Amino acid sequence: MTTYRAPVEDSLFVLNDVLQIQKYNNLPGFADATPDMIEAILAEAGKLAEEVLHPLNAVGDLEGCTWHEDHTVSTPKGFKEAYDLYSESGWGALPFPEEYGGQGLPATLNTAVQEFTMSANMAFSMYPGLTGGAAAALIEHASEEQKQAYVPKMMSGEWSGTMNLTEPHCGTDLGMMRTKAVPQEDGTYKITGQKIWISAGEHDMTQNIIHLVLARIEGAPEGVDGISLFIAPKYLLDADGNPGERNTMTCGSLEHKMGINGNATCVMNYEEATGFLVGKEHRGLKAMFVMMNEARLGVGIQGLAQSEVAYQNAADWARERLQGRSISGVKFPEQKADPIIVHPDIRRILMTIRSFNEAGRAFLLWSSLKGDISRRSEDAEAQQAAHDFMELLTPVIKGVLTDKGFDNTVMAQQVFGGTGYTKDQGVEQFVRDARIAMVYEGANGIQALDLVGRKLPSKGGRAVQAYFKEVGKFCSKHKDNEAMAPYIAPLSKALSDLQAATMWLVQHGMSNPDNAGAASTDYMHLFGLVALGHMWALMAETAQEKLAEGANGSTQFLENKLVTGKFFMERIIPESTTHLVRIQTGCDTMMELDAEAF
Amino acid sequence: MTTYRAPVEDSLFVLNDVLQIQKYNNLPGFADATPDMIEAILAEAGKLAEEVLHPLNAVGDLEGCTWHEDHTVSTPKGFKEAYDLYSESGWGALPFPEEYGGQGLPATLNTAVQEFTMSANMAFSMYPGLTGGAAAALIEHASEEQKQAYVPKMMSGEWSGTMNLTEPHCGTDLGMMRTKAVPQEDGTYKITGQKIWISAGEHDMTQNIIHLVLARIEGAPEGVDGISLFIAPKYLLDADGNPGERNTMTCGSLEHKMGINGNATCVMNYEEATGFLVGKEHRGLKAMFVMMNEARLGVGIQGLAQSEVAYQNAADWARERLQGRSISGVKFPEQKADPIIVHPDIRRILMTIRSFNEAGRAFLLWSSLKGDISRRSEDAEAQQAAHDFMELLTPVIKGVLTDKGFDNTVMAQQVFGGTGYTKDQGVEQFVRDARIAMVYEGANGIQALDLVGRKLPSKGGRAVQAYFKEVGKFCSKHKDNEAMAPYIAPLSKALSDLQAATMWLVQHGMSNPDNAGAASTDYMHLFGLVALGHMWALMAETAQEKLAEGANGSTQFLENKLVTGKFFMERIIPESTTHLVRIQTGCDTMMELDAEAF
Repeated sequence: MTTYRAPVEDSLFVLNDVLQIQKYNNLPGFADATPDMIEAILAEAGKLAEEVLHPLNAVGDLEGCTWHEDHTVSTPKGFKEAYDLYSESGWGALPFPEEYGGQGLPATLNTAVQEFTMSANMAFSMYPGLTGGAAAALIEHASEEQKQAYVPKMMSGEWSGTMNLTEPHCGTDLGMMRTKAVPQEDGTYKITGQKIWISAGEHDMTQNIIHLVLARIEGAPEGVDGISLFIAPKYLLDADGNPGERNTMTCGSLEHKMGINGNATCVMNYEEATGFLVGKEHRGLKAMFVMMNEARLGVGIQGLAQSEVAYQNAADWARERLQGRSISGVKFPEQKADPIIVHPDIRRILMTIRSFNEAGRAFLLWSSLKGDISRRSEDAEAQQAAHDFMELLTPVIKGVLTDKGFDNTVMAQQVFGGTGYTKDQGVEQFVRDARIAMVYEGANGIQALDLVGRKLPSKGGRAVQAYFKEVGKFCSKHKDNEAMAPYIAPLSKALSDLQAATMWLVQHGMSNPDNAGAASTDYMHLFGLVALGHMWALMAETAQEKLAEGANGSTQFLENKLVTGKFFMERIIPESTTHLVRIQTGCDTMMELDAEAF
Repeated sequence: MTTYRAPVEDSLFVLNDVLQIQKYNNLPGFADATPDMIEAILAEAGKLAEEVLHPLNAVGDLEGCTWHEDHTVSTPKGFKEAYDLYSESGWGALPFPEEYGGQGLPATLNTAVQEFTMSANMAFSMYPGLTGGAAAALIEHASEEQKQAYVPKMMSGEWSGTMNLTEPHCGTDLGMMRTKAVPQEDGTYKITGQKIWISAGEHDMTQNIIHLVLARIEGAPEGVDGISLFIAPKYLLDADGNPGERNTMTCGSLEHKMGINGNATCVMNYEEATGFLVGKEHRGLKAMFVMMNEARLGVGIQGLAQSEVAYQNAADWARERLQGRSISGVKFPEQKADPIIVHPDIRRILMTIRSFNEAGRAFLLWSSLKGDISRRSEDAEAQQAAHDFMELLTPVIKGVLTDKGFDNTVMAQQVFGGTGYTKDQGVEQFVRDARIAMVYEGANGIQALDLVGRKLPSKGGRAVQAYFKEVGKFCSKHKDNEAMAPYIAPLSKALSDLQAATMWLVQHGMSNPDNAGAASTDYMHLFGLVALGHMWALMAETAQEKLAEGANGSTQFLENKLVTGKFFMERIIPESTTHLVRIQTGCDTMMELDAEAF
């Protein structure tokens, strides 16, 4: 049996003290997010996660979803009740505009809430998560009529949403898409084709399911420039806007997966299903990218979330499990053995995960705040700069937080010894669930390529230069601050490795793009080290300032922060060296063997 | 559906060309292992693995083992038939002395064979694997009468063996063991207690199961010095030495696990079961360590084996899956897309795994040859030196090959994108199966501690000094060899990092043992880099020599070897730097937080 405690105190530290979110109360929705309100929301979300969602996590894994001969799908016992509670409490509406039924609160706050629900029950959290992504895409690209027809019911949770991209022969390469849309005289389209990996494609929790589907209008150009986006609701709306006639898409089967068994992963067969064009013809991919970027951020949160819950369970076990004696002398002579947390190698695991989790949380909230600024600020310059950062950092968030998040679940499982390998204990589910986050919404190799191939060169490298400047400025500011030296010196070193790697890419990636491809994953992780190191430096600065001010009872919390950050700087960020060395070896050896030699 | 092809050519390259096993034909059993014989044995083992064992791999995972109310256990469909074929062909007897029914062939050859069976079907291979380990312990520590009574039937596969150490409250810390043995007037013992994680503890494949059980004789001293080893057969032998009366141990239940579902992992309840003392009273742990060391080597092979089969499937998929276009220009314009093997990041994954697999295979065979020398040589000095190496390297083999082997299965799975997450595809089973190898036979943290705490300081550091000398001598020999420079320079650098780390441990580990604990896992992996790098340097030397001689049709194989080794030297071995940096930070930050802070 696993447990979960929402890290409310840590989230509040980042929001209130590090990011000082109150300073942004000129942005729409931020004024409502007073410190009391934020604390109340996080406490409430934490309670839901701990008491309602986490107890269903193992249930969802064990029972999974069930496909029936009539093409309906049942979700695991308890999921529907939890979903109703989640929806009625308004969690699905938190960051969305009030005019479409949202609550208009900061997306930054929503990120904190999502971490809790995703830690508690990743498979469950995907149902509302996809609905939010679909709603975001509609809000940005659909007609006013479409928005009014669909979004409020998605906000209330009465209807859910999906994202239909992948086909059996095309995952990453959407240009190969075959699903076709035939225009009808009434302005609608008939959609025919098969889509796979459709999370929440069919289930029993909502009255309607709003599918967003990519398809090729007959006669459209080849490749990605011939793809359009459609709304295809499971039930077509009647004259009153309520679910009416059943549309002609069905769930053909469910995938049997390594994990996230509580989520219904559907093969969807569209047979002349009625679809409504969203935005312009052949411009579907751009619209879907709104949803995809939301989803990528969400998947990054999943990486952190699984790492956090795995860490908590490993820490509890390490404190309780008695085995062996401390090598530096018996610590609990009155017991038959010492708890295994006395062993340095157990500490190494716990500190490694913890130092990632706290920085990962800060990185997600810091990035989400940039997202809020980019969407809500009226200052064009600030908005543009924030948008640049979000664009640049989305692949880093998705790729690094899920790669490391998965590694951390594996490390946490190791703390349990053989017990961690049993289904009864439950920590192995975190490993199986976390694994998918490295794959979906663009496999992490694609994130890395997006970073080096698209985001770096975009607008002459404006975003990455601004990022280097921001981190560099912070380092300069503290260059004579002795107390900050343990954080600033390693961060500066990693930043200079990242800059050297970037320079190498500029010099070698244009002449031979395979050099960029060969460097991409190492570059993404090198970037991640700097980004997380930057967060640690920010948190250390805040902790030192608050300790100097007197700290009000949170002295221990702040001192632990400083120790954990120091661990990151001593043991984790030095990996930057190896990444740089690897990047600079280029692609020649990697590409030399014939394909047949493998 | 997964496939498997035994890497016979590569194993032969290591055995015949790199290790030149024919030079050892003065050792007992080696003269029989002529080049023709070795090739025939590997080809035959490969065929068994490919055609019989691998097709049962997914079956074993899906069906698992079944516990019945009468305490019997059924293995998956087809396992018994495969086991009979395996046994009748004599595979279980290969490296054991002829006087007890073995074939007396080199253990080195057995390692090559085991890799194939473990790649094909890890869960299956554990049944004969444990039997071999139990037989080895009996051959070394049992009385002649006991050996004659049990070992030949284990060699023929008619009976199987197990290893009973763990209890619910004691895994790593065997001193806490409670299972008790009460001496009887007839010289036997009554054993009572519960043992858990007993692989193959109960099953339907053999006529008898020979349990080796650790227990505490009534009145024995506390701790590990009060533990004795017993033979407790499932069926007591009758006057003719055949299975007779049923002994009073039963399988209480099976564990439900993340993987290796085809293996029966039993809770064994001993209720005054009759046991026969092996060796001296209170000296059980030493005897069991023979079995444990065999098992640790075997688990190391499992790490490589899962990495190899995962690699093969990923490589096949990468050649076949069409998706996207090469970023350096379209490679197959006649197809709708290029195969994904054109993408550098896919190559990065494949080359990373491949460069580990080939070096891991060489390392296992090189170490097994040391094992053979230590057991069979009549030259006391050579025997001692070989024994030192095996002792030193066993934790490196177990810890590094299983950690990296698991990582590699995860990377291989990534090549498949979403498909790799489905049970239907099958590669996800390699991940789940490989995971246990990091845990059992001593979790990898324990291996690391064994290395720094026991193996390094043993006999004044004699073994590690000899190892440094051997690798250093090889580097010196080639210091002016330009063709070897791409292998020698990086290896020398890593060796000097390892030596610096060793020096640091000597200076800081004695004054504060927590410094050694804090360094242990990084030290083990740093050692692994040197060991694998050493293998690459040896293989490169051989490949260059053979190419210079004319190579006889294997030119491509040898050239690929040189490229793969170069990749290891460029991209993998530089990780040594980060390990050294980490080690030198010591334990202070790691140990600073209160246990309650986690």
